[in-house]
Amino acid sequence: MQVYLDNNATTMCDPLVVKEMMPFFSELYGNPNSLHKFGTATHPALKKAIDQVYNALNASDNDDIVFTSCATESNNWILKSVFNDHIVNGKKNHIITTEVEHPSVLSTCKWLEEEGVKVTYLPVNEQGVVDAKTVESFITENTALVSVMWASNETGAIFPIKEISEVCQKNAVLFHTDAVQAVGKIPVDLNDVKVDFLSMSAHKFHGPKGIGALYIRNSRKLTPLLHGGSQMGGRRSGTLNVPYIVGMGKAIELATTNIQSKMASIRAKRDRLEDALLELSDTFVVGNRANRTPNTILISIRGVEGEGMLWDLNNGGIGASTGSACASEDLEANTVMLAIGADNELAHTGIRLSLSRFTTDEEIDYTIEHFKKGVARLRAISSSFAKQQPTEGGEAKACEMH
Amino acid sequence: MQVYLDNNATTMCDPLVVKEMMPFFSELYGNPNSLHKFGTATHPALKKAIDQVYNALNASDNDDIVFTSCATESNNWILKSVFNDHIVNGKKNHIITTEVEHPSVLSTCKWLEEEGVKVTYLPVNEQGVVDAKTVESFITENTALVSVMWASNETGAIFPIKEISEVCQKNAVLFHTDAVQAVGKIPVDLNDVKVDFLSMSAHKFHGPKGIGALYIRNSRKLTPLLHGGSQMGGRRSGTLNVPYIVGMGKAIELATTNIQSKMASIRAKRDRLEDALLELSDTFVVGNRANRTPNTILISIRGVEGEGMLWDLNNGGIGASTGSACASEDLEANTVMLAIGADNELAHTGIRLSLSRFTTDEEIDYTIEHFKKGVARLRAISSSFAKQQPTEGGEAKACEMH
Repeated sequence: MQVYLDNNATTMCDPLVVKEMMPFFSELYGNPNSLHKFGTATHPALKKAIDQVYNALNASDNDDIVFTSCATESNNWILKSVFNDHIVNGKKNHIITTEVEHPSVLSTCKWLEEEGVKVTYLPVNEQGVVDAKTVESFITENTALVSVMWASNETGAIFPIKEISEVCQKNAVLFHTDAVQAVGKIPVDLNDVKVDFLSMSAHKFHGPKGIGALYIRNSRKLTPLLHGGSQMGGRRSGTLNVPYIVGMGKAIELATTNIQSKMASIRAKRDRLEDALLELSDTFVVGNRANRTPNTILISIRGVEGEGMLWDLNNGGIGASTGSACASEDLEANTVMLAIGADNELAHTGIRLSLSRFTTDEEIDYTIEHFKKGVARLRAISSSFAKQQPTEGGEAKACEMH
Repeated sequence: MQVYLDNNATTMCDPLVVKEMMPFFSELYGNPNSLHKFGTATHPALKKAIDQVYNALNASDNDDIVFTSCATESNNWILKSVFNDHIVNGKKNHIITTEVEHPSVLSTCKWLEEEGVKVTYLPVNEQGVVDAKTVESFITENTALVSVMWASNETGAIFPIKEISEVCQKNAVLFHTDAVQAVGKIPVDLNDVKVDFLSMSAHKFHGPKGIGALYIRNSRKLTPLLHGGSQMGGRRSGTLNVPYIVGMGKAIELATTNIQSKMASIRAKRDRLEDALLELSDTFVVGNRANRTPNTILISIRGVEGEGMLWDLNNGGIGASTGSACASEDLEANTVMLAIGADNELAHTGIRLSLSRFTTDEEIDYTIEHFKKGVARLRAISSSFAKQQPTEGGEAKACEMH
């Protein structure tokens, strides 16, 4: 059996999305900027896709949603445009973010520090989030931007974005959220939650890899990251990737229609898997279940190296992760687990399992069985675990790793 | 009949390319950075695609070819990294380019000027190109970069890139070429032509829209435009767009295999079309035919507004352009025609016809017939043309518009 439980890294492109994209490769292949029929024939589908994205986010006509090549581009764009517009060509000099952001935010911030920007990296609490009061306490008159993820790629923890947006608004500071792990997984209503900027990526919700967007409230002016042929009103140049824009529209529509019912279905499978794994001794799941994206488990199994467990799962046809796919090629401790207070040994034992709406009950059954056997196999050869002589029944708990 | 003659704006994605991409949407959909089989299963196809691009350009193992989302990104990246690495954090302050570059180069240079960079925009000669001696005469000790297109999107004129690369090398100045209109149309041999950086885009050679690359000789270090998860060795972050990378590899292989024979076939059709259109009185084709990409004609028909002609062709099912698709939504004079010395009236009469390997002889026949009738229709209602009272037989010539 093949079981894909790494949907926070990337997802299968929904065959319905592929079907929607197909005509735009070799039939309706014109450049949308061209005046002839080959170009204009693409316009209805583009308009539909744009509407699908606006509707999914409950965005207003006054807002802009600009397609980019990925959320990494969206995140680089917003951070570097704030650097250009408010720091290099302005009076501010400070950005607030968190220690657990995606590398596309953290690496950009590190680079901005080299360019002289002061960056505050807020630590997260034992639930893996930062609260709005903490954010507010670090805002100064020099703060140009607050950038906080909506949900964690590693733990699934949902940040209090509405409250953080309110303190930013109150203090007249721009607020950006990397919502890559929220859009399509939980309701994202931009009429209710007043973020200024929001990044997202289609391949996290069964759209294609290589297309994302930046939401810009009230169409605020930003220095482009990509200057050029004035596509998208000059905000983001480059020939429009028509098939992928069409695909992203379809994918976000599919993911957000009846999202509560989709969430309930995924959550039921996730909870069943989580409950079964927590029957193992000395296991820990990071973050309060109710405050997580409904598809995510970051579980720690004392005495079992994450990499070893990953290989054991892989041998059984199960795709999982030790954390962010971006960092998966180096065998370092899980930085998010370190950030929430895990000791170094424990931070090497994290396994992330992330489901999707395509995950079946049979796959969950199979995973539970294989996972439990794998833990037994690996603990049997673990010198560190043997030394600990676990108490009878062990210690299985969620939400208390600190 | 539908005839697509706007292949310099974008091309049909070759069905063979689509076929190659298809498995990577919903079957082999893993993130290549993931350690499990879903991720690693993509590696052989990625390796093949990378090899296809290296082979097509005759690049060396010491060089890097980094996939981007489009040539606009590649052009922004190289210009902004030179700005960062050699101007902001260096001692140089000057970039040389031409007046006829693509908007992604020109707009970026305009923005760099606002940031204090000195930019020289070289005019082109009556053949629509700049020569190496002219480039050399503008190089100073402050010059950080020369950026000159390999071939013009508007006229098809081929620039003396080998000679320009040699004067740059001699003067120890970095040299970038936007080869979007060269790769796949004419031989591009980077072992022979020593450019430092080269931009290209798959959708100009029957690959998908939304994928491009930047070639970097000797893997020279550049500040990334997209910081993040360290994909592509940290040069360009963002989850790899596996389907499109695979598609770009296939597309460049198809376009460059037996390129001389493909060029000869396209050139024969182009020349036949051009000869037929030049039978019309008072017509001019820009640039020496032998020094043009074999698929391109920029023809001027005195007394016929380009926009009017475009609509007439469109009504006949023929897709053409008045120039760059990026600028096609504003009805301004063709800037390249102005740059090569056309008067303002003439610069409103340019029609670009750009063929591809999919263009058939029947389509050429149909276009010749429809085009000639269209010119007659439009000249009959043109007040400016009537006033000129053309001489018997008119004046039909190529390569002499200045």
